[in-house]
Amino acid sequence: MKIAILGGTGPQGKGLALRFAAAGIDVVLGSRDGARAAEIAEELNAKQASVEGQISGAGNAEATAAADEIVILAVPFSAHNATLEAIREQLVGKILVDIVVPLADGDPKAVDMPAEGSATEAAQALLGDEIPVVGALHNVSAATLNNLGHAINCDILVCGNSLEAKEKVIDLIASLDVKAYNAGPVVNARCIEAITPILIRLNISKKVPFTHAGIKIWAPDH
Amino acid sequence: MKIAILGGTGPQGKGLALRFAAAGIDVVLGSRDGARAAEIAEELNAKQASVEGQISGAGNAEATAAADEIVILAVPFSAHNATLEAIREQLVGKILVDIVVPLADGDPKAVDMPAEGSATEAAQALLGDEIPVVGALHNVSAATLNNLGHAINCDILVCGNSLEAKEKVIDLIASLDVKAYNAGPVVNARCIEAITPILIRLNISKKVPFTHAGIKIWAPDH
Repeated sequence: MKIAILGGTGPQGKGLALRFAAAGIDVVLGSRDGARAAEIAEELNAKQASVEGQISGAGNAEATAAADEIVILAVPFSAHNATLEAIREQLVGKILVDIVVPLADGDPKAVDMPAEGSATEAAQALLGDEIPVVGALHNVSAATLNNLGHAINCDILVCGNSLEAKEKVIDLIASLDVKAYNAGPVVNARCIEAITPILIRLNISKKVPFTHAGIKIWAPDH
Repeated sequence: MKIAILGGTGPQGKGLALRFAAAGIDVVLGSRDGARAAEIAEELNAKQASVEGQISGAGNAEATAAADEIVILAVPFSAHNATLEAIREQLVGKILVDIVVPLADGDPKAVDMPAEGSATEAAQALLGDEIPVVGALHNVSAATLNNLGHAINCDILVCGNSLEAKEKVIDLIASLDVKAYNAGPVVNARCIEAITPILIRLNISKKVPFTHAGIKIWAPDH
């Protein structure tokens, strides 16, 4: 299995690449600068034991084309729509997993949602209904992903309008030993993306006993 | 200490009344029908051991006037604004805790937010800045609250524009042995209220190992 991670040279993308590779999945990092992506891929491969998935790097469109089916978008929100425009053709027949949170300019404790309501909805509107968009992995910090000695141990809320696409993404995330839940249609991205700045706020505050908060679905009878 | 719970004759309100009374806090249940509230209060008192806070019942305005400082609004969203109009005068000098989630008509798996963005924002707009509104306790199910033999064991996200009011509400919630976190300004109610239908969706689905999900703030180093 081979997935692409666009924006794969950022901290979130690199952490995801290492996690998926450790699960035996090949990863193509995408970047506007394909040479830079290839360089980062080599650095990440050097961190791995020999039995794991291979990490390579390419331009965003080439990386998208190389993915079997799943393409993860992990760019800053400022590059969200432009990146999608650039890979639109290569996405046909594939699933876009949007993990982007539209944080407010200069304030990571707030969202500044686009007119569509959320990044995931903006992606679905831009790509049209023939390309399924799934929102996921918004609430796991880059620090948690890159802390390879520790299990991720936070839950993932997955939303989108295609149940089939969501189930594939839930299976992919399960390969990281992480629980992912079907959290409903794409409109729920307005809530799920907005959880991230609340977690960032808690991390910044001095009132919590941890540094890289995520969420867990929990119940007294759990 | 005496608090009011408006809509206190519903399952959420009754569960909260029993929990706060068990913590030694007096509770006045408010209802449009004061006699009915008094009747329910007697039923709830009969469930209690002798050392706990007393539960009484009254009309909504009378209950609001009787509260020392904190008034919890637990009515269905359809009665949200009308109830606030009716108690506005009595709320001066007090704190309104809005726990209402604007669930979509006929679909508890979706929100139908008011034009203000969320119930909590609608309350703050209606009451004006002189009465602090705090959003809290949205994500704890009535079943969890009423399952008195079990700890609540889910976390509470608290939002609002007055830090002083939020801190008082966080202290009140702490009396239930529940962790409550300052989750930022009132605008974050758009996210926090919308978590509830996602949890309802998980509860309805057959894919989760529990029945009354809440959330916990969690981290690998927790």
